[in-house]
Amino acid sequence: MNRIGVDIGGTSLRTAVVDENGRIVKRREIPNQQGKSPEENLKPLADFINENKENAAGIGIGCPGPLDPYDGRILNTPNLPGWENFKVTDYFKNQTGLETSLTNDANAAGLAEALGGAGKNADSVYFLTVSTGVGGAYVYQGHIINGANGAAAEVHNMFVNEDTYTRRGMNPGALELQSSGTAIGRIASDAYGQPMEAKEVFDRYARGEEKAVKIIDDAARNLARGINNIVCVVDPQMFIIGGSVALKNPVFLKLVRNYAREYVFFPDKLDIEIAKFGGDAGLIGAAMLVDPKN
Amino acid sequence: MNRIGVDIGGTSLRTAVVDENGRIVKRREIPNQQGKSPEENLKPLADFINENKENAAGIGIGCPGPLDPYDGRILNTPNLPGWENFKVTDYFKNQTGLETSLTNDANAAGLAEALGGAGKNADSVYFLTVSTGVGGAYVYQGHIINGANGAAAEVHNMFVNEDTYTRRGMNPGALELQSSGTAIGRIASDAYGQPMEAKEVFDRYARGEEKAVKIIDDAARNLARGINNIVCVVDPQMFIIGGSVALKNPVFLKLVRNYAREYVFFPDKLDIEIAKFGGDAGLIGAAMLVDPKN
Repeated sequence: MNRIGVDIGGTSLRTAVVDENGRIVKRREIPNQQGKSPEENLKPLADFINENKENAAGIGIGCPGPLDPYDGRILNTPNLPGWENFKVTDYFKNQTGLETSLTNDANAAGLAEALGGAGKNADSVYFLTVSTGVGGAYVYQGHIINGANGAAAEVHNMFVNEDTYTRRGMNPGALELQSSGTAIGRIASDAYGQPMEAKEVFDRYARGEEKAVKIIDDAARNLARGINNIVCVVDPQMFIIGGSVALKNPVFLKLVRNYAREYVFFPDKLDIEIAKFGGDAGLIGAAMLVDPKN
Repeated sequence: MNRIGVDIGGTSLRTAVVDENGRIVKRREIPNQQGKSPEENLKPLADFINENKENAAGIGIGCPGPLDPYDGRILNTPNLPGWENFKVTDYFKNQTGLETSLTNDANAAGLAEALGGAGKNADSVYFLTVSTGVGGAYVYQGHIINGANGAAAEVHNMFVNEDTYTRRGMNPGALELQSSGTAIGRIASDAYGQPMEAKEVFDRYARGEEKAVKIIDDAARNLARGINNIVCVVDPQMFIIGGSVALKNPVFLKLVRNYAREYVFFPDKLDIEIAKFGGDAGLIGAAMLVDPKN
């Protein structure tokens, strides 16, 4: 049977019919218009689903966190003003009559990578995404581990060092404050005394600039420390790394691999692969939330 | 049906018949004699099992790591010289004809605490034991998560800070080097300039000695950092803490709880309980490895 994926983002809303092989067979994308209610924004998606729901086992939704996957409710998500406490699964269930489930966008992307990407034959996959922030997903025996509070794989807040900088209530020394694109830009802006984004730091790294080399090296080392910690907690069979920082800068993944091998118990068995799906990972992975036997 | 537990230790070997309620109904304990082969040492246990195997669904074995739970093999375990590469599950299977499985001692103790202790009704439990070292177990929906290399919950090697001290190939700044009884003794010995064990540091803590207060406080804080990291990776419903350092010093658990609440996303939902079973946790938990439906 087909499955329906929905990907809710701050700027766009997408839905697709995904076939049994994890391929998108039909899709619709519309802008997410601020000022409109969630119901008004989502109506065209519900209409699309109703037109294409024949032979569909259900709907899976990916959405930026924090959210409550058990309750199907969006919480105070910074990118979705006006959506607080909106029960998005109830909305789609009422509109379409289909079983609907919800997870955060990193979990959805991780599920696509785990089930349809490099993790296809792995028993357990830990997905990490490094872009503006650092997110993750723990996929165990084909299913997302959501955690008791829906906060499993919220690895951004994990301690990796003793740095004292903090923002947005995160722990000082937390992974996202050390290894995200935002962190690389911030640290470089401080070091160079001028505003700088991660992309430029990587350009300067490529030219061998000493400051940039140290900044990228530290970011990779701290991500590797996080990977070691994940190994210590659940020992996944494989890591898959996605997100723009990792995807656009192969050197970053190379550094991360090398450092992580220094830290873990079984360096020869440490398997860190790059994500395969591009921007559709979240949409396809959302569809994979649906039990095809429904 | 009954289940048979076996607990292999460096100084003693134990086995017990455990009933459907997780209670020991009959037991045998013998010394583990160095110089004798594993087979010679284990023979009395196999004999006991053969005499009591009627109505038993199988055998579960707990043993100090490292070991290979999938292969049923003991690796180079420091406390078991001469047992390297011994296939302990094959031994008991051949001797008794019963299905046999193996896990490390912390996993076995964690399983007992998760299924029969404070974690009885929890969907996921992360067990931590703080004694000479720091060990753990991740029990998810009633089953131990062993990890791809049998190294899940080997939390002792998780980075919690940037300390530079290391031993036995552990990562500098690893949890066990900061929060174990051994670590507390080592740090105190350095601070006081005289050999000191953890017990005395806690005595001095109770008397309010400034150095001892800082040492215990740091050890608790670093364990709380580790707990935060575990929350970020899998978000378990509950933590259960055992091991002599935690069991003998209620103040330690209190400090750990307070610090951990500062670090985690959901301080109100953070549930950290004390272990309930004493020295029998490993023996009872080993029996719980057995599928009662065998």
